Amino acid sequence: MTAYAELMAFQRETEALSAVMGRLGWDQETVMPRGAAPQRAEEMGAMEGVLHARRTDPRIGHWLAAATGADEVEEANLRHIGRSFRRASKVPADLAAEIARVTSRAQGIWAEARAAEDFAAFAPVLEEVLNLKRAEADAIGGPDRYDTMLDDYEPGATAAELGRMFGAMRPRLAALRAAILDEGPHPALEGDFPEASQLLLSAELAVAFGYDMTRGRIDEAVHPFSSGSGLDVRITTRTVPSDPFNCLYSTIHEVGHAAYEQNVDPAYLLTPNGAGVSMGVHESQSRLYENQLGRSRAFTGWLFERMRGIFGDLSTPDAAAFYAAANRVHPGFIRTEADEVQYNLHILLRFDLERALVAGDLAVADLPDAWNERFLADFGVAVDKPSNGCLQDVHWSVGLFGYFPTYTLGNVYAGCLHEALRRDVPELDEALARGDTSPATSWLREKLQRHGGVYRPREAIERATGHDVSEGPLLDYVEAKFRGIHDL
Amino acid sequence: MTAYAELMAFQRETEALSAVMGRLGWDQETVMPRGAAPQRAEEMGAMEGVLHARRTDPRIGHWLAAATGADEVEEANLRHIGRSFRRASKVPADLAAEIARVTSRAQGIWAEARAAEDFAAFAPVLEEVLNLKRAEADAIGGPDRYDTMLDDYEPGATAAELGRMFGAMRPRLAALRAAILDEGPHPALEGDFPEASQLLLSAELAVAFGYDMTRGRIDEAVHPFSSGSGLDVRITTRTVPSDPFNCLYSTIHEVGHAAYEQNVDPAYLLTPNGAGVSMGVHESQSRLYENQLGRSRAFTGWLFERMRGIFGDLSTPDAAAFYAAANRVHPGFIRTEADEVQYNLHILLRFDLERALVAGDLAVADLPDAWNERFLADFGVAVDKPSNGCLQDVHWSVGLFGYFPTYTLGNVYAGCLHEALRRDVPELDEALARGDTSPATSWLREKLQRHGGVYRPREAIERATGHDVSEGPLLDYVEAKFRGIHDL
Repeated sequence: MTAYAELMAFQRETEALSAVMGRLGWDQETVMPRGAAPQRAEEMGAMEGVLHARRTDPRIGHWLAAATGADEVEEANLRHIGRSFRRASKVPADLAAEIARVTSRAQGIWAEARAAEDFAAFAPVLEEVLNLKRAEADAIGGPDRYDTMLDDYEPGATAAELGRMFGAMRPRLAALRAAILDEGPHPALEGDFPEASQLLLSAELAVAFGYDMTRGRIDEAVHPFSSGSGLDVRITTRTVPSDPFNCLYSTIHEVGHAAYEQNVDPAYLLTPNGAGVSMGVHESQSRLYENQLGRSRAFTGWLFERMRGIFGDLSTPDAAAFYAAANRVHPGFIRTEADEVQYNLHILLRFDLERALVAGDLAVADLPDAWNERFLADFGVAVDKPSNGCLQDVHWSVGLFGYFPTYTLGNVYAGCLHEALRRDVPELDEALARGDTSPATSWLREKLQRHGGVYRPREAIERATGHDVSEGPLLDYVEAKFRGIHDL
Repeated sequence: MTAYAELMAFQRETEALSAVMGRLGWDQETVMPRGAAPQRAEEMGAMEGVLHARRTDPRIGHWLAAATGADEVEEANLRHIGRSFRRASKVPADLAAEIARVTSRAQGIWAEARAAEDFAAFAPVLEEVLNLKRAEADAIGGPDRYDTMLDDYEPGATAAELGRMFGAMRPRLAALRAAILDEGPHPALEGDFPEASQLLLSAELAVAFGYDMTRGRIDEAVHPFSSGSGLDVRITTRTVPSDPFNCLYSTIHEVGHAAYEQNVDPAYLLTPNGAGVSMGVHESQSRLYENQLGRSRAFTGWLFERMRGIFGDLSTPDAAAFYAAANRVHPGFIRTEADEVQYNLHILLRFDLERALVAGDLAVADLPDAWNERFLADFGVAVDKPSNGCLQDVHWSVGLFGYFPTYTLGNVYAGCLHEALRRDVPELDEALARGDTSPATSWLREKLQRHGGVYRPREAIERATGHDVSEGPLLDYVEAKFRGIHDL
C-alpha cells in the first residue's frame, strides 16, 4: 500500500466515526428521551475522545510527509486531512478539554441569562470563552488571530477581504431598508393553518427541491437543522399554526443544505471531499434554495395556488400580494426572523463587534452598549432588552467566533451563483412558475454540488459562475427585487 | 489512582461507546433511511473496530492483575471485565473479522433461502458459520465447546444442567399440549382494530407496567425489540389490524426487558453492573411481565373492559372467553407465535439439535430431516415446508449457537420468581384486576432488577426467591393455568 492509500484507509474509518457522532447529535435534537441527557453527554464525550485521538494520530504526520496526490481529487483530500491534523495537533489536549467544558457550561448560563434579561450574569463566562478561544487561535498560529478562527469555518477567507466586501454592502442595504420601511410593510399572510397539512406540504416541497427521501428523512425540531453527509442526510422542520411560511421556507432552506450533501459525487463517500466544502458555500445553497428560488415571484405564483388548494382562500387576495407577504420587510430585532434586506445588516453588526472583542478593542462589559448603538444606527430602532440584543444568539457562548460572517459570505456566493444561473438557464422562471425547480437544482448539482470538497470555497464558486466572487450581484438582485415589490 | 479506579475510568468510556453502538442498531431498525444501509455498515464496522481495540487493550490485563474489589459490587465489575477481556483477547483478530463477514453474508443467504423454501441453498454457509463458531469456542477454550458458546449469553450455565432440566419439562409439556389440542382450541379474538388505537393502548400499558417514558420511547419496527441501558432504554412494537394481542403483548414483553434495564441502581450507570446480567434473566422479566402478569385471569379481566371501552363490543362475550382467547393454544409451526404451553417445546427441539450440530453428531445436510422428525414427535404434525421448519429462525445464520436455551431458562426463572411473588404479595390479583401492576413490578425491582449485574444469573434468581432454581414452579403454573382454562 502507498502512504496515500494507507492514510485514506485510516481516514475512511475516521469519517465513519465522525458520521456516528453527527447521528448522535441528530438523535439528541429529535427523538432522544429528555431524561437521557446526562448519559448522552458521556457518550458524546467518549466519541469525541476517540475522534480527537484519531485526528491527532502521529501516523497521519508520517503519511502526509510521504504521500502525494495523483490528481486534484487526491490533492484535495490531502489538503483537508493536513489542515485538520495541523489544527488539531497544535491545540494542547488540556486546552481542548477546557474549551469543551467551559462552552458546555457557558451555553447553559447564556440560556438562563437570556431568559432573565441579565447580561451581567453572562459576561464573566463569555470573557472566559473568549480568552480560551484566543489561546486556541494562538496555539494554532497564523498572521492574524481572528483569521485563524475564521479559517475553521471558511478556509482561506480573511477578515480584511470580508471587511472590504461587507463595507460595500452596509450603506446600500441600510438605504434600501430605510426606503422600504418609510413606505410601511406589506400585509402578512394571516389565518390558521393546520400543522399536519403544513408538514405534508413541506415534505412535498422538499421533494420538489430535489431532496432524496430514500437517503434522508424529515422530523420536527425546535431549531431546524440539516445533519449528515453521503447516504444519510436528515433534515428537521417546525410548525407555527399562524405562520406556514416559517415551516415551508425553513424546510426549503434545510433542503438546500441537505441537497448539497446528497449531490456530492458518490465516489467521494466517506472521504474528506465527500461533504460540503465550507460553511459559506453551504449557506449559499440553503439561501439560494430558500430565497432566490423559493421566494421568487415565479415560484410563489405556483405556491399561492398550491396553498389555496390545501388551505382554502388565503388572506392575500392574489399572487402579487402573496409574493409580497412571502417577502415581507418589517422592523424586528431578531436575526433569524429577518428578511433578505435586513439579514445581512444583522451579520455585519456581529462581524464588527466580534472582531473588536477578539482584538481586545471592545471589552465584554461594553458589549451591550456597543450592540445597541450600532443597532440604532443601522436599523433605526433602540434595542429594548438584551434578549432582543446581544443575548439573542447562542454562537458566542459556545465559542463560535468567526462563524457569523460565513452567513453573509454565503449570501454573497448565492448572489453570484444566482446571476450565473439566470444567465445559463433563461427558461428558469417558466419552470419555477410550474413548481419545477429541476433546471435550477440540476445546474447547481452539475456546476457546484457534485464537487464536494475538491475545490477551495472561493474557487468552487468561481468555477461554477465563471466570475470572481463579488458582493455586486447580491446587492443588485436584492435592490431590484425589493424596489419592485415596493414600487420604489 | 488505584488500579481499580483506572480500570473503571477506562471501562466507563467503553460502556459509553458501546451504548452508542446500540443506538446505531436502534436507528437502523426504526428510523434509518433505506438508502443509508451501505454507509451504516461502514459506520458500525468502524465502531466495532474501536470497541474491539478497547476490549482487548493490554492495559486491562495489567489493571486486572493489580486491582482488588472492595465489596461485592466492585468484585462483580472486575468479574465482568475479566470475562469479556479473556474472551475477546483469546479470539484472533482475523477469526473475529471472518465471523463478522461470514455471518453478515449468511443472514442474507438465509433470508433468500427461506423465501425460496430451499434449505440446500443455505446449507453451505451454515456449515461455514458452524465451523467458525467452533473455532472461536476452541480459541476461547474450556472443558466443553457448547458450554463455551452458552457462556457468552448465560455465564455459568452448562448444557448438562440445562439438559437435565429440559428433560424433565418435555414430557409434561407434550402431554399438556396433546390434552388441550384433543379438546380443540378456544375461539380467537376477532374483528378489526384500528392501528392508531392499538398504539395508544400499548403506550398506556407500557406506562402501567412501569416503563418510564422520560427515559425511553416507543417506535414501530418489523421485529419488536428493546434497546439500551441506563437513562435511554427504547422499545418498539408492531400492529396487526386483526390481532391487537400481537401489539399489546409484544409491548408488555419488551417493557419487561426495558424495565429491567431502567430499574438497575443508578449508581451502576455506565459500569458493567449497570445492565441486565444475562439473556436468561432478561427473558425471565419479559416473559413474566407478558405472561404471568399480562395474561393472568385477573389482568385480562381489566383489559377486557378497557378494550371494550376503546373498540366497542368484542367477539369474546365475557371476561372468561377473553382470557381464553388471550391464552389460546392452537397448532402451529412457528416459535415466535407459540403460547405458554408449546413455546418451550420449540426451544427444547432447537437446543438438542444445535448441541448435536456443534458436537458433530448431526451433519448440516441432515438437519431438515432431524428437525421434522422431532417436530412430528413433540407436536404431532408434519412440517410442510422449510420456512415452517428449520429455516424459520435467523439465529443460526448469525452464529447464535447457545442462545436458544436462554429463552427456556428465562421461562424457568420466571416460574421461580412468579411463585415467590405470589407468596410475598398475596394481594397481587386484587391489584391486577384494577389494572395495577405496581405490587408486582415493585417486588421485582426491589428483589432482582435493581441489582443489575452484581450477582451471577442463577444467584440473582435464588436471592430474589429464597429457593434453588428449578423447572417445577413453571410447570406447576402452566399446568394449573391451562387445565383451568380447558377444564381438564
